[in-house]
Formats: sequence, C-alpha cells, structure tokens
Amino acid sequence: MILRMSSLFLRTLREDPADAEVPSHKLLVRAGYIRRTAPGVYTWLPLGLRVLRKVEQIVREEMDAIGAQELVFPALLPREPYEATGRWTEYGPNLFRLKDRKGADMLLGPTHEEMFTLVVKDLYSSYKDLPLSIYQIQNKYRDEARPRAGVLRGREFVMKDSYSFDVDDEGLAASYEAHRGAYIKIFDRLGFDYVIVQAMSGAMGGSRSEEFLAIAANGEDTFVRSAGGYAANVEAVVVAPAAPVDASGVPASEVVDTPDTPTIETLVDALNAKHPRADGREWTAADTLKNVLVVLVHPDGTREPLAIGVPGDRAIDEKRLGAQVEPAEVVAFEEADFAKHPALAKGYIGPGVLGAENTSKIRYLLDPRVAEGSAWVTGADKAGYHVINLVHGRDFTADGTIQAAEVRDGDAAPDGSGPLESARGIEMGHIFQLGRKYADALDLKVLDQNGKLVTVTMGSYGVGVTRAVAAIAEGNHDELGLVWPREIAPADVHLVATGKDAEVFAKAAELAAELESRGLTVLYDDREKVSPGVKFKDAELIGVPTIAVVGKGLAEGTIEVKDRRTGDRTDVPVADVVNHLVTTITP
Amino acid sequence: MILRMSSLFLRTLREDPADAEVPSHKLLVRAGYIRRTAPGVYTWLPLGLRVLRKVEQIVREEMDAIGAQELVFPALLPREPYEATGRWTEYGPNLFRLKDRKGADMLLGPTHEEMFTLVVKDLYSSYKDLPLSIYQIQNKYRDEARPRAGVLRGREFVMKDSYSFDVDDEGLAASYEAHRGAYIKIFDRLGFDYVIVQAMSGAMGGSRSEEFLAIAANGEDTFVRSAGGYAANVEAVVVAPAAPVDASGVPASEVVDTPDTPTIETLVDALNAKHPRADGREWTAADTLKNVLVVLVHPDGTREPLAIGVPGDRAIDEKRLGAQVEPAEVVAFEEADFAKHPALAKGYIGPGVLGAENTSKIRYLLDPRVAEGSAWVTGADKAGYHVINLVHGRDFTADGTIQAAEVRDGDAAPDGSGPLESARGIEMGHIFQLGRKYADALDLKVLDQNGKLVTVTMGSYGVGVTRAVAAIAEGNHDELGLVWPREIAPADVHLVATGKDAEVFAKAAELAAELESRGLTVLYDDREKVSPGVKFKDAELIGVPTIAVVGKGLAEGTIEVKDRRTGDRTDVPVADVVNHLVTTITP
Repeated sequence: MILRMSSLFLRTLREDPADAEVPSHKLLVRAGYIRRTAPGVYTWLPLGLRVLRKVEQIVREEMDAIGAQELVFPALLPREPYEATGRWTEYGPNLFRLKDRKGADMLLGPTHEEMFTLVVKDLYSSYKDLPLSIYQIQNKYRDEARPRAGVLRGREFVMKDSYSFDVDDEGLAASYEAHRGAYIKIFDRLGFDYVIVQAMSGAMGGSRSEEFLAIAANGEDTFVRSAGGYAANVEAVVVAPAAPVDASGVPASEVVDTPDTPTIETLVDALNAKHPRADGREWTAADTLKNVLVVLVHPDGTREPLAIGVPGDRAIDEKRLGAQVEPAEVVAFEEADFAKHPALAKGYIGPGVLGAENTSKIRYLLDPRVAEGSAWVTGADKAGYHVINLVHGRDFTADGTIQAAEVRDGDAAPDGSGPLESARGIEMGHIFQLGRKYADALDLKVLDQNGKLVTVTMGSYGVGVTRAVAAIAEGNHDELGLVWPREIAPADVHLVATGKDAEVFAKAAELAAELESRGLTVLYDDREKVSPGVKFKDAELIGVPTIAVVGKGLAEGTIEVKDRRTGDRTDVPVADVVNHLVTTITP
Repeated sequence: MILRMSSLFLRTLREDPADAEVPSHKLLVRAGYIRRTAPGVYTWLPLGLRVLRKVEQIVREEMDAIGAQELVFPALLPREPYEATGRWTEYGPNLFRLKDRKGADMLLGPTHEEMFTLVVKDLYSSYKDLPLSIYQIQNKYRDEARPRAGVLRGREFVMKDSYSFDVDDEGLAASYEAHRGAYIKIFDRLGFDYVIVQAMSGAMGGSRSEEFLAIAANGEDTFVRSAGGYAANVEAVVVAPAAPVDASGVPASEVVDTPDTPTIETLVDALNAKHPRADGREWTAADTLKNVLVVLVHPDGTREPLAIGVPGDRAIDEKRLGAQVEPAEVVAFEEADFAKHPALAKGYIGPGVLGAENTSKIRYLLDPRVAEGSAWVTGADKAGYHVINLVHGRDFTADGTIQAAEVRDGDAAPDGSGPLESARGIEMGHIFQLGRKYADALDLKVLDQNGKLVTVTMGSYGVGVTRAVAAIAEGNHDELGLVWPREIAPADVHLVATGKDAEVFAKAAELAAELESRGLTVLYDDREKVSPGVKFKDAELIGVPTIAVVGKGLAEGTIEVKDRRTGDRTDVPVADVVNHLVTTITP
C-alpha cells in the first residue's frame, strides 16, 4: 500500500495544541493522528486509525490464541441489568445516562460485566458448556470528571474487555492464568516497558487482581516495587498490622497543656520545650497520632463522617483512601460538619471522642502501623491540650484499620522482599478474579455433574486500546516527534522525494511501487512544492521507523536510509535499496 | 481457521423469537448470529460478527479502491455543530440527546455531516487540497419510533458514511460518479438483487440523489419502474403537470344539492341519480376533486393546517406526502382544528374557502394532474351541496402543487418510458449531492485558483452495514434456514461428523486440519453426544454454503458433500475430498 502525502488527509502542526500537557497528546495532535471533537472525545484521522487498528489486531490475535471468542455488545444499554448489580447508582456521575423517546432509562456502557453475564445465562446451562472466555473490542463511555492527556484518559474510548466463566475456583484460576499469559504477549508485542503489579479490584469486587502498567513519568498510577520482586499499585499495598508491643512499662496517660499547637510540627516543638520525655529522647512526629477527619459521600448521596488515625509523620494518601472506600467519594470535613459534632476540638482531636466510646458517633479507623500496646501523643479533645502515654488497647480502641496512609520509598515491602521504591505508570491492562458477584446478582447458574445448580465464577480482563496508542507514543518519542515501534507504525517506510528534479520523483515513485509489491506500506512524500526541510521535519514528527530519502545522492547512485530511532544514516546504492529496506523492516 | 461447535459460543433455537416478523430476523436469532439487548439494539454473537466484519471489509475495499480515506469520528458528539445546521431541532425525537456531568448538551451521532465538514475546515484551506473523499464505518444512533425486523431497522447500527469535497459542481459530479461505481461493486459483491432508483434527498437538502434498494417483499420502501428503464423510490416520483385543456366549452359552475354525500362514492351515485351529465356520460370518481385536510407539525412544535386537492379516484400516499413536507410531521386534522376554521363544511370542502381567496387561511396545494382549464365536481362549502363545472384557473386557483397522491401500477413513467410497476425494497445505500448546505452553515471555504474564498460543495454516501447482513439474510434463505452467499458466509465449509464411531471423528478432525491448512475456514461439528438429525438441522439453519458429512459413507470410502443452496449431494471419495472442496469453494 502507498499513502501519498500529496493526497493523504493530514496536516501537521508546528505548534503544540493549547490544551495539551503530555508529550503523547501534543505529538499525536501535531503529527495528524487525532483531533479533539469535544472534551475527552477524539476523532481518529487516517494515520491514527491505522495505528489503532494495528493495536486492536495484536490484542485480537492474542485473545484468539487462548481460545477466547469475539462478539460485540451494543454501547447503548438498558438500565435494568445495571440496576440489578447496583452499578446504575454506584457509577455516580461517571455514567452517561439518557432517556429514549419513550422515557426508558438507558446508559452508555462503561464496562459490560452485566451484559456478558446475561448473554451466557441466555445461551448456556450446563457445566459441559464451560470453561468459556468471550471478548469484545468496542467503544466504552465514562463521563470522567477530568478527561486529560488526549486519548490517554478519554470519555469515549476503545477497550478490549473479556470475561471468563467457570464452574469452580480452580477453573477460574486457570482462565486467569491464560489471560495473564496472553496479556504478557500483547504488551511485549506492543513494545511496552511495563510492570505487572498487584491491584485493587475497585468497584468490581472479587479477589486476585493485577494491573499491567506501562512505566511512564506522566502516568496517573503510582506503583511500588522491591528488588526482591514485590510490585503493587500503591493503592493495593497492604501494610501488615504492627506486632503488639509490651505496654507494661508505660506510665498512665497524662493530659498536658500544649497551647497553639494545631499542627504536628508545632506540637513536637512544644512538647520538647515544655514536656520533655522521661527517657531523655526527643519527641518526634512519629510519636504522635494524627486524627484526620473526612466525609464519605455514598452513591445514594448520604454523607458519612470518618476519622482516620495515622502516625504523625505520615500523610493520608488520597488515592489509597479513595480505593478503600469506593464507590463512596471522599470530600473534606468542613465547618458545617464540625458544627454537627460539638465534641470535636479542631486541631486537638483524640480517640477520646472517637473510637470505642464514640461520643461523636464518628467511625474511627487506625493505620495498621499503630500497634496494640504502643503509646502515643494525641489530641485531648480540648483546645490547647494533648494527651501523652495514651496506649492503644489500654487507653483507647478503634473500629478497625484502614490502608490509607502514604507508602514511602524505603518502606519495607509487605512480603519482606526489601525496601520499596516508587515509580509512575499508565494502566494498560487489568485482570482480576471477579468471582460470583455478578453471577449472583444476575442469577447465572449452571447444572453441575451431579445435576445441581451452581453459581458460575467469573474473571474480568481489560486492555485500554485507544489508551495504548497514547501510552506507546508516551514511551516512544524524542524532541523531534514520534518514534513508533515497527509492529504498530502507520507505515513501514517513509519515502521522501526532495528537490524539483523530475528524475528524483520518477525514481521515488518507482521505488514506492517496488516496495509496495514486496508487501510494505509506504508513506510516500510526493509533494512537489514543499521544501526538503519541511519534509524532513514532517517525517521526524510522524515517526515511521525507517526514512528513505531520494534526493541529492541520486546523482551518485545512492539513497539515504535513516533509522528514526537511532538517527543512523546509511547511503545505500540505488540497486540495493529495495532489498536493504525489506531486510531491515521484515528481518 | 477451525470453529468447533463443541466450544463455539452458539446455541441454535428451534422456535422463532416472539417479537420477530420477518424471516431474516427469525433466522438470524434462531441460528445464533444476533441477540436482542434492548428494543432495536442487538448483540452480535461470534458467527454474526464474522459475517458483519466480512460485509465491512467489502465496503472498505471498494471505498479504498476509489481513493476514499478511512477515519473514525466519535459517536458521542457536542451539540453546537448540529445546532448550527438546524439538525439538533430538525431530527426531533429521532435524536438520542444527553447531558454530560457538567450539563453540556451532547448527542449520539445519527449521521456525521457536520463533523466531516468541520474536520475538513480544520485541516484544509486550498483548492489544491481537493477533491477529497473521506469515510468511516461506525456505530450510528437513531431513536426510531418503531424499531423493527431485528437489525433491519435498529436504533444502534453500523453505517459506512462517506463525504466528498469539491470546489465546483463538475468535481462533485465526478466524485458522485466514483461513489456510484463503488456502490455497484459493493452490492454486486454482497450478492444483492438490487435496483438503483431516483430518491428524495430528505432532510439532507441537495440535488441529485439515488438509492440502492435490495429487492425484498418485506422491504419498507416502495419503488416503481418502467420497462423503459425509469426507476424511482415512490416518494421521489415527480408527476409532470397535466397539460392545460381548453375550458371554453364548459358551462358556468353550478351548485347542486347532494344531501348525505360525504364520500366520493356516495357523491358519484347521487350525481348520476339526480344531476346527470349534459354529455350523457356517467359521473365517475375521476370527475371529482377531493380536498384533504392535514396538519403539519414543524420541528419547533408549530402546527400548520394544509389542504390538498387530488382527483377523487386517487388517495394521498402518506410516505410521499411525508417526504414532501419533511422535516415537518403529518398528523390528522381533528375536530379541534375544524373548530378553529368555521368556514369549513366537513365532507363538502371546496376551493371556495381554500386556495386563492383563502377565507380559511389554509394553504391549498393541488395534485399536478389537476390541469389548468379542467372542470371538476367538488365541495360547495355547505353541508349537502357540491359544485359542478368548477374550472381550475377560471373558477378557482391554488397556492401551488404537491407530489402527494399515490402512484399506481400502470401510471405512465414521468419520462415517458412506459407504464410503471411497483415493488418493494430495502434501502441499502444512498448517494446524493448535498451541495453547499453544510459548507454554508459551517463556513467551509477554500481559496480558489484566483485566491478568492469559495464555498466547498459536498456529496454524501451511505451504506447500511448491519442492515446489509439482515437484507442478505432476507434474500438468501429457505424454509430450513439461512443460505449465505460465499463471500460473506461465516465459514467456507460446515463439516459434520456423525455417529459414535471414533474413526469418523478422527477422519473429520484430520479433514478439518487439512482444509484449514489450505486456507479455508471450517465450522466443524465435533459434538459427541448430539444426534445426526440435530447436526443436520443446525447446518441447514446456520447456512454455510457447503456442507460435508463424515459418517456412514466412510465405510465405503466416501464423504457426502452437499450444496446448501441447491440441495445437491455428491459422494466424494475420501482421498479427493479436500481438493474437491477447495475447488468448489475457491474456484
């Protein structure tokens, strides 16, 4: 196939689009791959569509290879199944809802768990029909609060979503492993530098859950890993409860005056100045217990206050907290909320009004680092006062623990495999064992070998297809433009004819035809009144991995072949150039 | 590729689905190609998706062959462009509208004229960039009042829509011809028995317009054609104005009493009984002028009464009338409307209160058959009275003509090519010259050769892709099931292993592998505990064009090969069967 620049529906831009922040967004727009149609909603121009289809095809091939079967659901869906599973409400404002002309509630599918469950219920009835894996590659819709970074997080996007159906947990484990293997092949073929991390299952329910993250400085996800092989999305890091400590030597708790110490820093200073420790050591933030108040807004709109106790040297991580309380959203605890709870002394809140006694009626959860038997400095529930030597289990208790505190570089990996280091990534794939949540909600049962009805267990597996294009661009560019991996480049070779010489254009046209006959896709810059400089700039921007220039060298019988990634240039004799290119491109 | 029935996600049904009326709908559901998800919204199961993709690929190849370039727009679109062209309102309840979380109005694209126009405006600016043809194959949404016949008329459906952009009318004509040629190839390859008819351009505006109709008894469209080559959608038939006749011999008009004659039949009888014609001929319905009242509801909700005068022997054709007044909808003229127009004598309405004098303020349009100078019997605007010898042009006039009367078999073709005959069809493709309507509304201009800004002229070309699958099924089935044309069948051969003999299954599996290695797609019925009868029934229902049965004959060294369409059976020696099948399928 030959794509001629003279007629290709393409315009490159020299300037970055005003709304673009990350390189992939800037370059995909500037190089003419995508155009914004509405916030988070994009048009795929011819070059972009070529890349998108290649990514789709790689995903399709690897899904077919594990025996998954492709089908396609509508994007426009009825409310009822999503009502049955609770997701009509749980999705909150992220769901695009609409009414049809008869007033029936409909939605644009954000994911299709319900529909997959129902179609299997419709067609299958026996354990003999299972295992089954089915998938689709299709438009999904989520009304993101902050669509960003072009197609990296859009409101209309293409996803491959597949589901496995098994009669028992062993079957689910096998289906999960098959998908995991297929995903490794997919992300290898897409050329990602990626990591597989433990993940939260989020609003989906279920048990085992892993994410495939493309490592990228601009990624929205933070993950941590240890040299010993532990890797997890930071939201999924489970800090083990600290071992109980012996509190027998701790004196009785004591209220001390600490005026004007609403922050940990001012508190530590005041303590060291006015209330030095008996053991001579200095007070530090790690000795304090900070009680943070937030409000959970549940999908039905109800507001629930929540108190979280964490060591004073550690912040709450909003994403970790958010993941723990999903589908509720976390908002600030405001003056109006304080007014409803007069027992709370702002800046001096302690377990006295929280926790077991619950005089404030606020649920109180502790960071797992707060060991049974450990002693703390914390608020005395009175402005200007704190309490020291307050022992967990002796002097106060809580309603439970929560994994909401920040995870820091150097923290120990939960599995003991060494200190953690953090990095950022883009979530490209997510596989998880849903279990029976959806099958229960929608009554998907089959007859087992004994003729007894059993509930089917499911796995769910997603790949962000439009996002993959952006993530590949994010990981494959330089200051001049995009640098596509070969397997997904929009063309195999970018052939540039330069100058005004008719002979050059005739030779270039001949080469393009020969390359096409050898099965290559040629992006041929045959524009006549465009300068070589502009043509070279466009070639660097568009990012086809091999660039061949028919120009000045032709007089000496050579054609310049350039590797877009390395910048290496070779002058190849005209007679050899077709074989040279074919060998380079399809070795 | 081998699709094994033992694991294929498929269940055939013996009973027709309750909501299905037409054969394609019944069979596509029963044979496991599609499943209903919501009214007019369908899921494509694995076999159905295979057929759908084949249709898409044929369309894609022929579009690429004329140099059209594929891109893809979002389905979720902003309101503004559709507001600029008036279609946000004109589409009325057929448009799926929704609001995003910020309250912005959005829609699900019914067609993408606006978006195509804007993307060209975004990228191009000079006559040198044109001509251009771009297309997409994508989900479209229309909230049909009566979604019917499965995927024949759905609310979410796949369409290929392309647009051409030219600087002048000559260019548009060439782009139109190129698409027309591509469409002929597409519908030939899809195996349709089709006809190209003149069409209305409907709400789209524009000039030349043709439809490709698949001839089908269950089609929603009626078309007429003559032996001499005229063919038109019945809505697009333009009856020429009747030549003026000499009225000099017609006596003065005369009001006659015709009590109790609210219908044409009672009127003709009364006239013949009480007021015989002077020339001795009997009065017939063709001598009467029937004045029909309707109300037009415009997209903005305003109601406009309309009176239509047609010869009494001819009915109003609702579809023809509807096409003429689009985007207004036609509703009945009711008692409340009569109350607002007291001059109207129900059952005895004549041009006296309509037309030029307009005492009723109702617009009055005549059928073009009502010649200048012709004399009529019509209502005298007084209950129980008619007027005879009322001459058009002498005694009454109207506000214009309208193409709303029925077209009947035997009517003369407008081009004089002989009598018309009517038949029914399914609209599969529509090509038309939009002209400058959208370019004007959205200000798409380019610089011409003289550096002057000129408005671009556009063509619009659509193929119903999901509809094509249903239409092919509608034209290719028998009482046993579907009979797919080879090029779009879900598999090349349906291989059936019968009985319980392990040797049979071993031989069948070997054959399946050999056929796969020869590049064929094999639907292999390897189910072990299913009777031959059920397997044969499934094969007939699914409709793969060639069926090969490995069974009883194997003992005598033969395999039965059956042509699904003709029913012809051949016993082929085992050693020859692969070559026999390959030659049959890819001759």
